[in-house]
Amino acid sequence: MQLIRFATEGPSGPAQWGVLTGEHIQVTRGMGGEPTGDTLPLTSVTLLAPAEPTKIVCVGRNYLDHIRELGNDTGDLPSEPGIFLKGPNALAEPGGTVERPDWTDNFHFEGELALVIGTRARHLTLDNALDCVAGYTNGLDLTARDRQKTDLQWFRAKAADRFCPLGPWLETDFDPRDVRVQTRVNGVVRQDGRTSQMIFPVAEILVYLTRFVILEPGDVVLTGTPDGVGPLVTGDVVEVEVDGLGILATPIG
Amino acid sequence: MQLIRFATEGPSGPAQWGVLTGEHIQVTRGMGGEPTGDTLPLTSVTLLAPAEPTKIVCVGRNYLDHIRELGNDTGDLPSEPGIFLKGPNALAEPGGTVERPDWTDNFHFEGELALVIGTRARHLTLDNALDCVAGYTNGLDLTARDRQKTDLQWFRAKAADRFCPLGPWLETDFDPRDVRVQTRVNGVVRQDGRTSQMIFPVAEILVYLTRFVILEPGDVVLTGTPDGVGPLVTGDVVEVEVDGLGILATPIG
Repeated sequence: MQLIRFATEGPSGPAQWGVLTGEHIQVTRGMGGEPTGDTLPLTSVTLLAPAEPTKIVCVGRNYLDHIRELGNDTGDLPSEPGIFLKGPNALAEPGGTVERPDWTDNFHFEGELALVIGTRARHLTLDNALDCVAGYTNGLDLTARDRQKTDLQWFRAKAADRFCPLGPWLETDFDPRDVRVQTRVNGVVRQDGRTSQMIFPVAEILVYLTRFVILEPGDVVLTGTPDGVGPLVTGDVVEVEVDGLGILATPIG
Repeated sequence: MQLIRFATEGPSGPAQWGVLTGEHIQVTRGMGGEPTGDTLPLTSVTLLAPAEPTKIVCVGRNYLDHIRELGNDTGDLPSEPGIFLKGPNALAEPGGTVERPDWTDNFHFEGELALVIGTRARHLTLDNALDCVAGYTNGLDLTARDRQKTDLQWFRAKAADRFCPLGPWLETDFDPRDVRVQTRVNGVVRQDGRTSQMIFPVAEILVYLTRFVILEPGDVVLTGTPDGVGPLVTGDVVEVEVDGLGILATPIG
C-alpha cells in the first residue's frame, strides 16, 4: 500500500493523508488511518514529505565503499552505527526545489533508503524491530561537506532547512534487506548500491537507536548512503530511486 | 510573568499551560495564551518541562573556562558558535528523576541558561533577536562525556531520552546579558558563572542559528555551560539556578 501526505492548496496548505490507488487518493484520518470516504484525483494535490516527525535520525558511514571514498579509515570498521540528528525543519517535499546555500562550497547529494515509524518503539529486538515501521521511502541527505569538517558538530552541514527531501510516498509492503539504492544527477547514475551492503542493516539500526531514544510515530530514520557522493550546482536535478519506492526528484535552485 | 506547563494527573497526563501567581495557576490556552478563566492551586498539579519543541538547539563551548577544563585548544577561540541538536525525547520535567544510563562511565552535569521561542524566526538581526523569545528558564544538558569521544557525533552522548531537564517555569521579563548561572550537586556549588562570560551572547546565538534553520514557537535553545562540570552518581541531586529563574532540581536514579 502506498501512503501519501498532500495538500490541496499548494505546499503550505494544511496537510492530509491518503492511500494512493493508481491516479486516485482515498483520503484517510492521519497516516495509515481509517478512510474518510473522500476521494481526490492525484492531479489535484501537491505531494508533501510523507512524515510528521519529532526527530529525523540518520546513520553515517553505513556503506564500506562510502567510508573509503571520504578518505576515512576503514581499518577498523565501526562497531556501532554512527548517528546524527536533523530536525523537522529539514524536510522538503518531493519535487520541491532546494536552494544551494551561499555558506557552502561543496554541497553534496547522498541518496538513501528512509523509513517512517508507525508505532512508538523503545528497546526493540532484532525479531520485532521492523514491526514498528509504517513504511519505506526515498531520502536525500543533503550535506555541506566542507562544513562537516570546519564545524564542531554536523548541525549546519546536515540539519539546515530543507536538507532532507523525502518521498514521494510510503510503501507499507516492502522488504528492506536487499534492494537497489540509486542516485542520478541530471539523468547520470552517480550512486548505485544495494541495501545488502549496509554495515548495519535496518533492523540493527532500529535496535541500536531504541537503546537510547524512544522512536515516536512519524519519526524518520535515514539508513546511510552508498559510495558515489558528489557536489551539486544550481540547475542540477537529483533523483533518488530505491527499487519499488518510486522516484524522489529534487531540483537544486 | 511566570509561564508554567503542567498536568493534573501526574507527569504523563495531558499538558496544560498557565500563569503562576504566588501559589495559584491561571490556566491559559497554550503557552502565553488567553486565560480560560480556570484557576488551580499549584499544589494540585505536576510541573512539566515548560516547552513543546520541534527541536532543541544547543551551543557547545560557549564559556572560555569550560573549553579549557575539557582540555580543548583555546589558542583559537571559535569564530562561530558550535551547535548540536537534541530531540523532544530529551526533555525531562523539573524535579523528575533521570536514570544514569548503564552505557556511560562518565555521566556529566552541565547547567545552562535556556530559552524558549515564542514566535517563528528566520534571519534574525542583533536588534530584533530577543523579540522572538517567549521566556527563559534553567536547563541541564546531561552529557555522557566518554561517548562524546567514542562516537561519530554526539547523538547518544547528548540526545538520549531525558538528557534535558528544563524548568521550573518560563520567565517572560528577563534580561539574559549578565546573570549568574550556578549548578550545585548535593548542595555543593560546582559551577558558578555569569552569562556575561559567554563567547557568543544570546542574541548572537539566535542570529547565527536563524541563518540556517527556522526556529518554531516552542523550540528550546540551550546557551552553553560555564566551567566546573563533573560526573554524577546514583543518588546525587543536581540543582541548576540561573538568578531570577527559580531552581531546577534533578535527582539521579
